Amino acid sequence: MSDECVRVYKIGGNVIDDPPALTCFLQEFAALPGRKILVHGGGKEATRLGRRLGIEATMIDGRRVTDAAMLDVVMMTYAGLINKRIVAGLQAVGCNAIGLSGADGGSIKATRRSPKPVDFGYVGDIAAGDVNSRGIMSLINAGFVPVFCAIMHDGVGTLLNCNADSVAAAIATGMSGIAPVELIYCFEKEGVLRNPDDETSVIKEITPDTFDTLKAEGVIHSGMIPKVQNAINAVRAGVRSVVIRTSRDIPTPHGTVIRQG
Amino acid sequence: MSDECVRVYKIGGNVIDDPPALTCFLQEFAALPGRKILVHGGGKEATRLGRRLGIEATMIDGRRVTDAAMLDVVMMTYAGLINKRIVAGLQAVGCNAIGLSGADGGSIKATRRSPKPVDFGYVGDIAAGDVNSRGIMSLINAGFVPVFCAIMHDGVGTLLNCNADSVAAAIATGMSGIAPVELIYCFEKEGVLRNPDDETSVIKEITPDTFDTLKAEGVIHSGMIPKVQNAINAVRAGVRSVVIRTSRDIPTPHGTVIRQG
Repeated sequence: MSDECVRVYKIGGNVIDDPPALTCFLQEFAALPGRKILVHGGGKEATRLGRRLGIEATMIDGRRVTDAAMLDVVMMTYAGLINKRIVAGLQAVGCNAIGLSGADGGSIKATRRSPKPVDFGYVGDIAAGDVNSRGIMSLINAGFVPVFCAIMHDGVGTLLNCNADSVAAAIATGMSGIAPVELIYCFEKEGVLRNPDDETSVIKEITPDTFDTLKAEGVIHSGMIPKVQNAINAVRAGVRSVVIRTSRDIPTPHGTVIRQG
Repeated sequence: MSDECVRVYKIGGNVIDDPPALTCFLQEFAALPGRKILVHGGGKEATRLGRRLGIEATMIDGRRVTDAAMLDVVMMTYAGLINKRIVAGLQAVGCNAIGLSGADGGSIKATRRSPKPVDFGYVGDIAAGDVNSRGIMSLINAGFVPVFCAIMHDGVGTLLNCNADSVAAAIATGMSGIAPVELIYCFEKEGVLRNPDDETSVIKEITPDTFDTLKAEGVIHSGMIPKVQNAINAVRAGVRSVVIRTSRDIPTPHGTVIRQG
């Protein structure tokens, strides 16, 4: 077990679809000291490409239904276009990024989701033991900064589309077996807000106990529940802390911290 | 300088566009002992995707003109779709493949080709010093098998479309500074043929001297000239040998060997 913390950052569409914001984020990320991993989503670009190809995105409960044609679209968009743009952008500012899908270096496996009750197609879920944390750490120790897209594989040749928030949580949880890990979800808001219209109403800290209360009070609701639940699960499984915060000004502490309590 | 040979294999459309042939090649490649690198092209898939998106491929002297829209297409196809299919296919048969563009791990830089006399757009050429051979070797020594697509970067954030034959030659030449290297071009024919209609007419060996004679006699002509010229340049620059051969049955020696003589 190494003492130095590994920080896992996750970025989504609000940064990826905004070139000046992405450039700014990558500069700040490149300058961060210490061991780090970047995980990116990229849903809007895939939807746009699918539309141009006549493949409409079908979403169920916020998850993309991925048939064979849509799998090609997400592989092209996430592993090809977005991942390589990010890697080239990081290399340009002195960060030795290496772009990875779960298949690359046998880093992360996923299991195709059961077709019942809903058949999501080529969609995978990642279990704790599916992350090859030693393989990923060997890349970090060799001086590389892993940049993961959310395309995983089943280990027998099939690629699977995964949720990028879940990929980040799985990586953080898996790596926490061999090093202290912080997981940082960067999104469009300042943090988890008491009042969604007031960016100053950031809840500073959430623990598993206060999460239940905040849910019961209706303060945390709808789309924020799975995000915070992912974070709670991660800290329960050994991640030191999870931060939910804006993607701007990442060197400065901000946002909501989720801890074991 | 390590004694153990590094073998650089290059495959193109005849394998990539033929799923049973690709499966067979990947199984044989996975089983090859020793240190190895795979480089792949994938032109037809990019042309097909471009057509579906209303972006027609313009070729000049066999090179793809790559404007910004076409760069996206080749990034998606080569770095996304084809690279990840190959990596997942190799992982499924026990080969610890890691898919790379030139940007990943700062492996290979390219220089955008001068817009005069012909503006090829985002097309790059690779010089001898552009290959980070020690970085690539560190991945190999860590147990990974690098799988390169032909997308490189200029080091300051721009991705560039390169010719996969040239990428393979550049990698082989670069790596030959730190280890003995063999370069193997796999294509649809048995080797360089004296008579293009007779697959048994393989020229067993070509040296720089005999190349000049074969060209003067018109035995080597048109599309085969740049392929053999790439090979001659590679052996002149330190690659131990280059083989031009079929992609079938790669454990068995076959084809045309190009040596310094």
